[in-house]
Amino acid sequence: MKKLVQDKQQFLKDMLDGLTLANQSIEVIHDTIVVRRAKKQSGVAIVSGGGSGHEPAHAGYVAEGMLDAAVCGEVFTSPTPDKVLEAIKAVNTGDGVLLIIKNYAGDVMNFEMAQEMAQMEGIDVETVIVRDDIAIEDVAQRRGVAGTVFAHKYAGYLADQGASLHTIQSKVADMLEGIRSIGMALTPPMVPTTGKYGFDIDEKDMEIGIGIHGEKGLKRMPIAPIQTITDQLVERLVKEVESENVIVMVNGMGATPLSELNIATKYVAASLKAQGKTVRSWFVGDYMTSLDMQGFSITLVPYDEAIQEAFFAPTASQYFTH
Amino acid sequence: MKKLVQDKQQFLKDMLDGLTLANQSIEVIHDTIVVRRAKKQSGVAIVSGGGSGHEPAHAGYVAEGMLDAAVCGEVFTSPTPDKVLEAIKAVNTGDGVLLIIKNYAGDVMNFEMAQEMAQMEGIDVETVIVRDDIAIEDVAQRRGVAGTVFAHKYAGYLADQGASLHTIQSKVADMLEGIRSIGMALTPPMVPTTGKYGFDIDEKDMEIGIGIHGEKGLKRMPIAPIQTITDQLVERLVKEVESENVIVMVNGMGATPLSELNIATKYVAASLKAQGKTVRSWFVGDYMTSLDMQGFSITLVPYDEAIQEAFFAPTASQYFTH
Repeated sequence: MKKLVQDKQQFLKDMLDGLTLANQSIEVIHDTIVVRRAKKQSGVAIVSGGGSGHEPAHAGYVAEGMLDAAVCGEVFTSPTPDKVLEAIKAVNTGDGVLLIIKNYAGDVMNFEMAQEMAQMEGIDVETVIVRDDIAIEDVAQRRGVAGTVFAHKYAGYLADQGASLHTIQSKVADMLEGIRSIGMALTPPMVPTTGKYGFDIDEKDMEIGIGIHGEKGLKRMPIAPIQTITDQLVERLVKEVESENVIVMVNGMGATPLSELNIATKYVAASLKAQGKTVRSWFVGDYMTSLDMQGFSITLVPYDEAIQEAFFAPTASQYFTH
Repeated sequence: MKKLVQDKQQFLKDMLDGLTLANQSIEVIHDTIVVRRAKKQSGVAIVSGGGSGHEPAHAGYVAEGMLDAAVCGEVFTSPTPDKVLEAIKAVNTGDGVLLIIKNYAGDVMNFEMAQEMAQMEGIDVETVIVRDDIAIEDVAQRRGVAGTVFAHKYAGYLADQGASLHTIQSKVADMLEGIRSIGMALTPPMVPTTGKYGFDIDEKDMEIGIGIHGEKGLKRMPIAPIQTITDQLVERLVKEVESENVIVMVNGMGATPLSELNIATKYVAASLKAQGKTVRSWFVGDYMTSLDMQGFSITLVPYDEAIQEAFFAPTASQYFTH
């Protein structure tokens, strides 16, 4: 297995140790929860998390201006409710906690169970569920992917503005209603804990509509020039995004070199223009990955002045770059 | 070829188009030169460049606080002297230009030729040559690798402080005297312009001492646990770095997922500690890559308060993160 690892059983621990060693503003508590060292003294706390393997999501976004805590499960495995509860209790200032959950059965069940447990202890907890991946037809079943990172940013910004839990929940949920993503992959991720590839794919093929755990997409087809790919992805996206003005994320899947992400960006721009869309701002980089999968996803956010301001407000996270 | 490209002959153009589309503070002039849109009105201008394929180097560092221009050659191919000359002329404010050159025969020849041509036009131009890669025994032949990015930062900082060309050249050259790097790779880069891998390597092997163009390293051996790797790399590095206190870069080679870079960081820390070194600050990320090669390099900078301050001074580059 071509991996930089010491012991695959220690993948999560070693990764969090390395992350927090190089980032003095965060620390690990209860083995798998990443929090800011300087805990917020008031205001709504924002908590997210899920299985690992999507770095820098979510621990990399624990920083001023974004998350207060990230609950990290093993690779592609939901964290348990007791860990989510510990995170809630660690960061709650008394002003309530918002949980940002990607729409996977295990995450939703465990985060909502933690919410109930926290509420029984008198902590005000609300949730938003991210379902931005249009590769799934049934909206209720849609997976949470790169759009989740925008939810972290918007929620963190609103919390810093002093908004109430209810207001933040409602505004982030509204934004999430409009966000759409779709991804593609050239190669599968190699899962370090199993030593196996996430899926098999021919040397000449690519997968359109891939999930961030290597879940099957919409179709498999021979690798095409990038403009053919962006045209297809954008055509599907714009069917569900009415706004002429959009904020765009071009997200690398983990092992996509920046040169190719930049090339993809050029053709995403061309495809959006052909569909009559105007791009108001770009986010290009690795925000929500799938280990060492090669590929990218496109996320569209309907433009809104307040949302744009929130996205461009400062954050101490070195990973939410633009 | 598993690449996100439209036309391999257009790789450089498409990449620069995408980069500058998403970064409104920079633009492309003369096809292959990236400059700031808001040209500096006074002070020393800092210019670097070389073959492409090392993104975000060098164009990603054209930003306030770092470079004024990056001259981009085709993939792994030095830019021509006339392009370097155009860059010098475009950014010169009258206070002189520093060229930061990686030590490859083509780069040194072409940048120095441009220096002579500019001097004949009355422009004050000095150079520093980066030779941080200790995988080559003969110091004069050493390749410039990730340490180059620290030279960009330090020079850009000194220029913003109003230092003279001579002072900047001298201080950056002094810092470069002490910087040492070494890299390793699990996989070769796929070169888009040829459709060929940079080298052949067995599924069970890794290359220690790899160059950023896939050049042969010190040895090839079976993949080992990460601590064995970091021990070997660090043991070689510390032989040439006397300072107890060091600034450390753990640089991804392009397709290394952040999870593994973080794991590597943990073990680099352990290896350095075992060698009696104290780490004063960390830089972990993809700073100087080799297309989609998997692997990483370690760079040590002897700690110096002024250098640390320069590294942590603000820059508008989204890629010089810490």
